[in-house]
Amino acid sequence: MKKFSKSEINEFVQLLDFSKIEGNLIPVVTQDYKTKEILMLAFANEEAVRKTLETGYAHYYSRSRNTLWKKGETSGHVEEIESVVIDCDNDSLLLKVKQVGAACHEGYDTCFYRKFEGGALKIVGKKVFNPEEVYKK
Amino acid sequence: MKKFSKSEINEFVQLLDFSKIEGNLIPVVTQDYKTKEILMLAFANEEAVRKTLETGYAHYYSRSRNTLWKKGETSGHVEEIESVVIDCDNDSLLLKVKQVGAACHEGYDTCFYRKFEGGALKIVGKKVFNPEEVYKK
Repeated sequence: MKKFSKSEINEFVQLLDFSKIEGNLIPVVTQDYKTKEILMLAFANEEAVRKTLETGYAHYYSRSRNTLWKKGETSGHVEEIESVVIDCDNDSLLLKVKQVGAACHEGYDTCFYRKFEGGALKIVGKKVFNPEEVYKK
Repeated sequence: MKKFSKSEINEFVQLLDFSKIEGNLIPVVTQDYKTKEILMLAFANEEAVRKTLETGYAHYYSRSRNTLWKKGETSGHVEEIESVVIDCDNDSLLLKVKQVGAACHEGYDTCFYRKFEGGALKIVGKKVFNPEEVYKK
């Protein structure tokens, strides 16, 4: 797992351009560092980027709940950071991670588990867990 | 290359939730269908999604120029659609593509060509072309 020092984090967030999306957010794409499968696409504000780099676990900003969100905080399906990559415009991030469990809250290995083909959505992801069991109260 | 019929396209855009980003946009992540490298992250409005599916070439919406944008229209570095994948919330897309030339306008194979490591950005992408030659007037 990859963590970063306070001064590294300060330097990094200075580079990022949060101005382009309402609420000062950047899109973050998360990729399995080994299989290269894309796991999810979410958003981060500065706090989420800082927490990600400080703890070594992916954090995002939930636009529906208006709050910082550690991926896996309920399910245990955390994402350990292997590397952090920035795009040419400094306005989006790629997190290469080791995914514990599965990325999608619907139980699939990836949130991108449906391909559009022949006029219908075809399931191409792998069901890894039962959401009703993992998210039960 | 994968193209879609008018009725398939109508069906598909109905599924998408464009409401979450100002300007009715969704984030689109583009991946090399063979190497699985992530090439870029951009935005699309409904028109861009329609054009992508209709023509078989990736189209995006340029927020800086406020216009529909066919990737590669200037450089020739088009992206041929191999498959279209939708995420669990219907608010982002994954395009698996065959990239002609290189994805990044700075000449690298991917827009995500810099990794944050040891307090600095380290170039991990491969320089494929010279932007001054490709984008010359």
